[in-house]
Amino acid sequence: MLIVQKYGGTSVGTLERISEVAKRVERAKKSGHSLVIVVSAMSGETNKLIEFAKYFTNTPPRREMDLLLSSGERVTSSLLSIALSAKGIDSVALTGRQAGIYTDNIHTGARIDKIDSAQITQYIKQGKVVVIAGFQGITNNGEVSTLGRGGSDLSAVAIAGSIKADLCEIYTDVDGVYTTDPRIERNAKKINKISYDEMLELASLGAKVLQSRSVELAKKLNVALVTRSSFNENEGTLITKEESIMEKALVSGIALDKNQARVTLRGVKDEPGIAAKIFNKLAKENINVDMIIQNIGLDGVTNLGFTVPKDEIEEAKRVMSKLNASELLEFDPKVVKVSVVGLGMKSHSGVASKAFDTLAKENINIQMISTSEIKVSMVIDKKYGELAVRALHEAYHLDK
Amino acid sequence: MLIVQKYGGTSVGTLERISEVAKRVERAKKSGHSLVIVVSAMSGETNKLIEFAKYFTNTPPRREMDLLLSSGERVTSSLLSIALSAKGIDSVALTGRQAGIYTDNIHTGARIDKIDSAQITQYIKQGKVVVIAGFQGITNNGEVSTLGRGGSDLSAVAIAGSIKADLCEIYTDVDGVYTTDPRIERNAKKINKISYDEMLELASLGAKVLQSRSVELAKKLNVALVTRSSFNENEGTLITKEESIMEKALVSGIALDKNQARVTLRGVKDEPGIAAKIFNKLAKENINVDMIIQNIGLDGVTNLGFTVPKDEIEEAKRVMSKLNASELLEFDPKVVKVSVVGLGMKSHSGVASKAFDTLAKENINIQMISTSEIKVSMVIDKKYGELAVRALHEAYHLDK
Repeated sequence: MLIVQKYGGTSVGTLERISEVAKRVERAKKSGHSLVIVVSAMSGETNKLIEFAKYFTNTPPRREMDLLLSSGERVTSSLLSIALSAKGIDSVALTGRQAGIYTDNIHTGARIDKIDSAQITQYIKQGKVVVIAGFQGITNNGEVSTLGRGGSDLSAVAIAGSIKADLCEIYTDVDGVYTTDPRIERNAKKINKISYDEMLELASLGAKVLQSRSVELAKKLNVALVTRSSFNENEGTLITKEESIMEKALVSGIALDKNQARVTLRGVKDEPGIAAKIFNKLAKENINVDMIIQNIGLDGVTNLGFTVPKDEIEEAKRVMSKLNASELLEFDPKVVKVSVVGLGMKSHSGVASKAFDTLAKENINIQMISTSEIKVSMVIDKKYGELAVRALHEAYHLDK
Repeated sequence: MLIVQKYGGTSVGTLERISEVAKRVERAKKSGHSLVIVVSAMSGETNKLIEFAKYFTNTPPRREMDLLLSSGERVTSSLLSIALSAKGIDSVALTGRQAGIYTDNIHTGARIDKIDSAQITQYIKQGKVVVIAGFQGITNNGEVSTLGRGGSDLSAVAIAGSIKADLCEIYTDVDGVYTTDPRIERNAKKINKISYDEMLELASLGAKVLQSRSVELAKKLNVALVTRSSFNENEGTLITKEESIMEKALVSGIALDKNQARVTLRGVKDEPGIAAKIFNKLAKENINVDMIIQNIGLDGVTNLGFTVPKDEIEEAKRVMSKLNASELLEFDPKVVKVSVVGLGMKSHSGVASKAFDTLAKENINIQMISTSEIKVSMVIDKKYGELAVRALHEAYHLDK
């Protein structure tokens, strides 16, 4: 098989850890696989460099930041290639530029435009293990760029798509994606297989192992992703297209999102354009609105509810107050969003009602509800968050 | 003026030091100069990376070492550019590749083939301070290369030559070149002006501030070099072509080279080809022979003397023993070489005899003598090294 393996910061956090990664690569190579390895910087290194820059200014030029930050992955990629050579494995380390990763010119948050994988492919044909510095690319005019948070995962997925790899393994210090946060429900089970869409809906469960941006790209490029731990031999979680999953789980997992605040406008005039006015304004100020709920109104007025990230609530207040609305505004940061996610919902009814029943039995009031084809999300009082997760986890027999 | 400033590892060894460098650059910029800055890695950083590589193997692939080591200068160049931006100075950091530094493909010890300075020149025209990562370049096939020990000095000199800079300032933690080692003779004086050739002969005095390789390149490219300290405002030492030095000092300095061992062959047959046989053999084994002395022989036999670096003496013994020579071999590591250097010797006689006189007065026996147009070198017993330096320093009134 042609496999792309990506090792995150903790997986290459020390020289000992890099040795362990080299052993893992050696085993895969000896099993007959062709390998491309993408590495992050040693854990803590990127933050150290950011702190260095902040010594001088809180607003360093982004172009120079990219040059600075890209050095971390150069170090780990060359060290891993050296470690492999020491084991007699023919390998070659490549920078983002040498790997042909072209991006737009949005420094510190660049998007991959295209990958010219000729060089990678040539080295693979020569039997070499290709070790690539993740997180970085090059713009059309030769400037070094970085891809922002989760950038090395993106590098790995994009490269896997470009060389049509059979598998893209993302190694972290976590075993995979769980049915819910094991710190909340100790009976949470690791999920063996999950679809891209479910994974995207379970973002908060997977946030530690994989960012939405990478899952979206994997879906687009049809890259079979595996997230697993580099600290043990456990099988991870395969994230793949829906068609590849034979037994679709009714419910795959329960997600808890604590970073939501609820905004309610009471007595909004029920007339065309009012929602557009509000949400255009919020979008312009880069406030990410998640759930939006509006009901049919009574007597020409209605209530409009939506959620924003908790750390953007002050900004949202500022924007809303400028609207000079006569409506009664409520901001409630003491809420959480609990989501039930599963492909099986598409073909089975009753999933949503079971969720409402379960919360009702626990005397938990549901403030907002929003549903999609494969998800039911409920906004509830913050203090019931963990209780709701445990109750739902049991109700759908996820511990079995 | 168009000035290239190069800052060594101790000059950019901490964030505080980088701030100090930014202040110095700011002053030069505000004086109206156009500036190109070349930086080394933070002191200790390159050694740290070498230690990292040695964790895996003592013979890391040189190509990967270059990728690894080149990261240090990327960090300092971007940090300095960030520090300058924070002061409102328009600047841009460039890697070796972006600065157009092309080298051959001898990894970890590459030679600069050419500099394509179009990009540098364009930025200078835009009024930007150009900050370049020293020590690194790129090969014709896009591989990262490094220039070996003293590489950042070489980068600076080569760039200065390429853009026809008026001055190339090399900043270290030393004030400049002294008439002799101040640790031996506390009355040693800083030299204000010295020729390339004198500097090359005084290599041991200047070794801490500038390597011969850089002086040779500066001479070839006719680059006016200044070595000075980044820790104070003292004027440094200008190293320039002989024609630019009006008042040629009879003697510029006294050098002491402690890394020499003497080899003597007694009773060598005085016939053609014997010296060639010996020195070809030594050259093949990469042993650097410095002084070579042979006299007219008596009765068909002669004595042949030469010096080799002290740490190569075991190797020299091995090579010489394989020659199966019947000659009597003597190895003496307990010697030093004292050299008197000065342009004025060309036009004044008596410089050499004064040296011999001075040592005679101190009852120091001279074992070997070798002279060039601007230098007299004497091999003497190691224990008299410091005494000889002090006596000669006084004899030529270098403390005045």
